[in-house]
This record gives sequence, structure tokens and C-alpha cells, in this order.
Amino acid sequence: MSFTSADFRVTSSSFSLKDHPTELKAHFSKDELKKLLDADRARIIDLQDRLYAEKKRSLLLIFQAMDAAGKDSCIDHVLSGVNPQGCSVTGFKQPSSEELGHDFLWRHAKAVPARGMIGVHSRSHYEEVLVVKVHPEYLMGQNLPGINGPKDATAAFWEKRYASIRGWEEHLANNGVVIMKFFLHVGKKEQKKRLLERIDDPKKNWKFNLGDAAERQHFEAYMKAYEEAIAATAAPHAPWFVVPADEQWESRAVVGDLVREQLEAMDPQVPVLSAKTRTELAEAKKMLEAE
Amino acid sequence: MSFTSADFRVTSSSFSLKDHPTELKAHFSKDELKKLLDADRARIIDLQDRLYAEKKRSLLLIFQAMDAAGKDSCIDHVLSGVNPQGCSVTGFKQPSSEELGHDFLWRHAKAVPARGMIGVHSRSHYEEVLVVKVHPEYLMGQNLPGINGPKDATAAFWEKRYASIRGWEEHLANNGVVIMKFFLHVGKKEQKKRLLERIDDPKKNWKFNLGDAAERQHFEAYMKAYEEAIAATAAPHAPWFVVPADEQWESRAVVGDLVREQLEAMDPQVPVLSAKTRTELAEAKKMLEAE
Repeated sequence: MSFTSADFRVTSSSFSLKDHPTELKAHFSKDELKKLLDADRARIIDLQDRLYAEKKRSLLLIFQAMDAAGKDSCIDHVLSGVNPQGCSVTGFKQPSSEELGHDFLWRHAKAVPARGMIGVHSRSHYEEVLVVKVHPEYLMGQNLPGINGPKDATAAFWEKRYASIRGWEEHLANNGVVIMKFFLHVGKKEQKKRLLERIDDPKKNWKFNLGDAAERQHFEAYMKAYEEAIAATAAPHAPWFVVPADEQWESRAVVGDLVREQLEAMDPQVPVLSAKTRTELAEAKKMLEAE
Repeated sequence: MSFTSADFRVTSSSFSLKDHPTELKAHFSKDELKKLLDADRARIIDLQDRLYAEKKRSLLLIFQAMDAAGKDSCIDHVLSGVNPQGCSVTGFKQPSSEELGHDFLWRHAKAVPARGMIGVHSRSHYEEVLVVKVHPEYLMGQNLPGINGPKDATAAFWEKRYASIRGWEEHLANNGVVIMKFFLHVGKKEQKKRLLERIDDPKKNWKFNLGDAAERQHFEAYMKAYEEAIAATAAPHAPWFVVPADEQWESRAVVGDLVREQLEAMDPQVPVLSAKTRTELAEAKKMLEAE
């Protein structure tokens, strides 16, 4: 059993969110999904070791989702067990004043994984065309020339941001960074259920943030911003994957399967030693044995 | 007296290095040049204070030149006296292994000046299409996918690097970074004279590097690489300035004059306080006086 990546992948601007359900059409039991995820994770762990040894390319996994869509637990389930030396996770929260003092890609560019690494960005530069698009008043904190009020955030302004993102991602792809962008697509009804659980279940209280309930009032505006951002930035070298997230085991299994498939397609190779290095190793061995 | 920036500015691909002499056509005495530089520097110091207070835009000054062209002394003469809190100079030398582990813009993006700052890059991302183009074997240290030998560095490969640079600089310009790129253009004969001085004058010995004499053998290849890089990356929002550098006081005075002119055109504004803040300040004053 495995999923068909084409069912989730978006690589061009002809994209409509309504074609992407928040649940899988086929039904799988939780056991089936867990079994698939376990098998995929084992392959990911092995392939990541080879990626690390190859040190030519890196894999950048970007996760975007509404609150309570299961982003963090998905990252945890898909990547736990991977050698932490070869995997770094960066969570992006509200930008600091140092970060606001720079162009909007600055803090994200710093966190791009080095060759050989899997880098996970939990939230990303896409927040700059998502939350900031829903709340253009946040732009005021960025002190941008020509932006004196939220009304200055015109369609042309957002188009320039999309163009910056496209240009940057193309540069990264040209330099060995393989990019996968995941949108964990949770429905409005399921989000309500999960937020209520966070209030009702004392063990989940710490996850609840008063702002989440307020933000939910903008759910439709967020869906529009996601649809526009995905359409504007999907490309063969930087595909989006819209993953149904109403069932957490489904989204985990799908993401795990897609990452495993991508790493297999990359087929990282442990470097073959040159004849010279091989001779040197043989000499070193002789020296050690003669001690 | 002041220079005409149009004499040095390159903003499009129709560019030929042979139209740009290594000496000014008009003759100015050293005293005249120093006087102009002093006046320009005083203005730069003042304008930089306002840029820092405005905190909307930054000025990125990129310096590229052959060895011994006077890059560092030029930076020193033009910017000494500027409040160091508002000015940072980054010198880029051979990349570290951490830097080689990332895409070629990574270390340069990290060093882009924050809003309000003047950032000077002494050497820059252009080395990636200059020294690396003259010595494509250096690419091997970058472990790029698809580059297995210097012969893989095709015209298409360099065109992609130029496109990365163009895209990045356009993104920066869209986000409030004003870019000026200086090529200090020294002649081959003058370079020889300065390198010999570094050998003959004990006080200058520390500046001499055995590699400089070897690198000089590639002078013509470097000029070709500069010409191609300038033509491929000159734009109205990221102009190159080709500055004659056979006479050091000439190049210092020209660069100072161009930077002063750019800052004047930017006309940075100290923020005007809102009525609310003004009232708060008046209240704070009353409290302090009543103590």
C-alpha cells in the first residue's frame, strides 16, 4: 500500500482548493495507516543517512496549516528516529524586532538546510502572504517604504511578494535544495472540535491560545489566502502538497509516504572513494596494524 | 565641484569595459579631490543619521576590484566618521566549510544591512561569478549536484547564477534595500606598480600575498568575467558604477560623491511624532519636572 503523490501535488497556477477534500476518499484503518507510516519512516531514516553522506543536496520540508491542524505532531511522527545530526527543525513564530528590521525572506534564508540535511520549517516565509495578507495591518510593523497604511497593500504588492518567493525558491532548487511544501488541510468543523478539546482536556490546555479562537473568525479569508498563495507559487521544482488533515493518522501517513517517495527519487549516493584515497586508507591500515 | 554619476553608472546589459577608462579624463589636483571628499563625507555622516532614524530603508554598498585596486582604503576614506552603530562592513574571504555547505547567496543574504543601516560588502556574491568563473575548479568545493568537473560549468550554468543574483537583488530593492555596486577599475600596469611597492616597502609587506602575483596572470580573464557579470546584472534598481582607480584620490572622491548623491536622492526623513506620542511626551515632561 502506498499513496499516489499526484493526488496531492500542485505544480501550477491552475489550482482550486475546493478540488482538495479534508479527508481521504478511500478508507484505511488506523492500523493500516500506522503500519505504512512505520515502513516509510524506516526508509526515510536510511535514505537520510545516505543524503548526509552524499552532501550534495538538501531536502527542505515546509509545513503550513491552520491552528490545530496537527502540524507539529505530523512532523514528530514522520521524522522521529532520523539522525538528529542530519535533520533540523525550525519553528517560525512572530518575528523579532531584529527580523522585522530585514527583508521578509531574511530569517527564512538563514535557516535553509545545508547540503546533506533535511530541514523542516514549521510555518515559513508563506506566513508573509497568509497571516499578513489576512491582517495587512501587521505590515505596519515592517516599516516598508511606500506602505503607510493597510490600504497600500495592493494586489501589485502581494504579486511582488509572490515573485520574491518564486525567485528565491528557484535559486534554491538550482543549488541543490529539494523543496516540498505541505498544506495540512483541516476543515472548519474539525478545527472547532480540536480547539474545544484543548479547552476541555486539562492535558491539552497548554496548547490552547486565546488568539486561536479569534483567528478562527477569519477562516474563509485564510482559505482564500492559501488558495492564492499556492496557485502563485506552485512549481515543478517547488511543489505544494495539499494533504487532508481531518484525520491525523491520514495526514501523517500521507506526508510520510510522500517524503519517502521524494527521497527515493533523489536516490542519494554514498561517495565512492577515489583510488588515491583507497591507497591512503590501505597505508593507514598497515601503519595501525604495525604498531 | 561634483562628478556626474551618469559618467560611471551602468544600468543595462549594453556595457563594454573598454568605454570605461582607469583614469578620469578631466584633471583635478589632489587638494581639490580631498576637499570634495571631505565635504561629501560630512553630508554622508548627516544623511546616515537621518537614515538610521527613519528606519525604512537601508543602503547596500558592494565593492569589487582586482587586488591592490584600493578597495579597503576607499571604504575607509568614504565612510570614516559615520556613526558605527549605523554602518557595518563585512569582508568576504574564502568561504568556510559551513558557508560552502549552503547555496552561494546564503552568507551574503545574512549580511544584508537592516533598515536604517549602511552595509558595506567588501567583495561580495559577485566573487561567485568572478573568481569562480576564472577558476571553475573552485566549484568542486561547493559539491553542487550535476557539477562533476570544471567542464560542467557551462554558459547555461553561469546564466543561472546571474539569474539568481538578479532575482535576489530585485527582491531586496522591493523591500527597501537601495543597492550600489562599485567596480574599482585599475589598469594592469598600475596594479603591477602597487604589487611591487608592497614587496619593496617594508611598511606595506603585510599587504602582499604570494597568490596575488599568480592571480595577475589571469588579468584578462578577470576583465572578461567582470564585463560579463556587470552586463548581466546591471539594473536601474541595482546599478553598477565603474570607477577609475589608477589614481586613488580620484576613486575615493568619485565614490564619496556618488554615495552622497544617492543618499540625497533617498532624502531620509526623521519620523514625525504622532499627536498621541506628543501628548505622552508632554505628560512625561510634567512628571519629571514635578519630582
